[in-house]
Amino acid sequence: MNLPKQVKIVEVGPRDGLQNEKENVPAEVKIALVDRLSAAGFPNVEAAAFVSPKWVPQMATSREVMDGIARRSGVIYSALTPNMQGFDAALAAKADEVVIFGSASEAFSQRNINCSIAESITRFEPVARAAKEHGVRLRGSISTAFGCPYQGEVPLEAVADVVARMRDLGCDEIDIADTIGVATPRHTQAVMETAIRAFRIDGLSGHFHDTYGQALANIYASLELGIAIFHSSVAGLGGCPYAKGATGNVATEDVLYLMNGLGIETGVDLDAVVDAGDYISQFLGRKSSSRAGNALLAKRNG
Amino acid sequence: MNLPKQVKIVEVGPRDGLQNEKENVPAEVKIALVDRLSAAGFPNVEAAAFVSPKWVPQMATSREVMDGIARRSGVIYSALTPNMQGFDAALAAKADEVVIFGSASEAFSQRNINCSIAESITRFEPVARAAKEHGVRLRGSISTAFGCPYQGEVPLEAVADVVARMRDLGCDEIDIADTIGVATPRHTQAVMETAIRAFRIDGLSGHFHDTYGQALANIYASLELGIAIFHSSVAGLGGCPYAKGATGNVATEDVLYLMNGLGIETGVDLDAVVDAGDYISQFLGRKSSSRAGNALLAKRNG
Repeated sequence: MNLPKQVKIVEVGPRDGLQNEKENVPAEVKIALVDRLSAAGFPNVEAAAFVSPKWVPQMATSREVMDGIARRSGVIYSALTPNMQGFDAALAAKADEVVIFGSASEAFSQRNINCSIAESITRFEPVARAAKEHGVRLRGSISTAFGCPYQGEVPLEAVADVVARMRDLGCDEIDIADTIGVATPRHTQAVMETAIRAFRIDGLSGHFHDTYGQALANIYASLELGIAIFHSSVAGLGGCPYAKGATGNVATEDVLYLMNGLGIETGVDLDAVVDAGDYISQFLGRKSSSRAGNALLAKRNG
Repeated sequence: MNLPKQVKIVEVGPRDGLQNEKENVPAEVKIALVDRLSAAGFPNVEAAAFVSPKWVPQMATSREVMDGIARRSGVIYSALTPNMQGFDAALAAKADEVVIFGSASEAFSQRNINCSIAESITRFEPVARAAKEHGVRLRGSISTAFGCPYQGEVPLEAVADVVARMRDLGCDEIDIADTIGVATPRHTQAVMETAIRAFRIDGLSGHFHDTYGQALANIYASLELGIAIFHSSVAGLGGCPYAKGATGNVATEDVLYLMNGLGIETGVDLDAVVDAGDYISQFLGRKSSSRAGNALLAKRNG
């Protein structure tokens, strides 16, 4: 079984990570973090969310961040856009990619946005059309694809259905996300195989959480199927909103250690990411939740 | 590819784990821990080490622990025995299994015990003979099989050689240990395939450390080869002596979460292990280093 020779790591720490941190991070720190990450070699950094600051105060500085970063040629800077207002703001801020989102769990969709999955996707139609018109990349993010904090199990058919809807909206890339970190490798493969039947494999990405320590095993199981895009968060920024004190997003340093060990090219410099993780962890005043990050720092400090 | 239907989890927290904790743990706490673990369903608990208390003060209470535990029928209580003095003490303490150990790295062997790998194994001959005579199970533990803090890479031939030597001593079970946690899945498979060529697959076990977050991915990769015995440490007890503040032994709770998710039988009750991990973490006054343990506790506490 051959693994991909090359994978794309999408660094989501500055947006998905920091959005879920208690501490509010000022724009200049976010800018410094994004710049460290793009300098480390990531081809794609999720940097902003153009959402209501009333609901997501941590993202209120998104325009300032997008204006302040030192853009690297070839790097895709992504922004979440829940609606046309968000899209217009993302366009004005020169986002290279806009991200729309839906859930694979009906219960999660109802609880979070008070509408069905199908309705939530329909609401994104104008954003998707506008992205196409303006030549902006469109990414669709599918949450709770492996399990839901409200309904528990999520049927494979529900994943297939929402992947098809995202595809039909014209998404260039679709993320299959384990929002609560409950997946294990064979379940991961079943979900990913379902997604592969509904969308181009080279446009599918795995977004795993390490809540139960399973993320790297799930990433490895996804690599075995040929999945070649993964999301991760420097220093494991983000935590888990569904289990206080638990781990959330898989840490980028751990993912890079895995890829390096497997001989898979990422174009990202692990040492530089360890530095970026140390920078933001020091700002937040806590230990990184990356195991590889902490071990590599410990080794450096002798 | 079929995974094993059933695996044996060897709980090493009370010995391998606590031996590497800074805080000295009194015998009554160790006894309570071992009893909680055997009640949780582990078929094998590494409970003691009959070594010089001058070198390993944490293990000075080994006899008291072995005398104090509530023995469960069918459970194997293992003890490390570096020499005949240790073997005699283990026999007197009614250990069901004695553990001898060697390294796959010449540099590690020289630095740690001041002799070559071959010499170190030869020194165990009397212990191995005595174990056979007394009908005590014999386990051979091979450290630094995936990498060494002193020499770096460890050749596959060195692993093959020491597995063969352990086999020729009459070991019933042989552990392949990633002492510094540097392995990744394909390297794991290469080392395990080497070991499988030299010993019965059903007598081989994987002992992984989570220093760089790779342990579960390596366990999954080992399962794919048919390896069906794994070591783990409740609450991730132990830490890493080679990188201060880094993670050491893979946490049992994370391993059980993996096995449960894969539908692999272990006979161990994860909730009871979470309790045991909480018990010892509270005694040590720190957060467990098990991700699944922390998440499950967080969910319980609502």
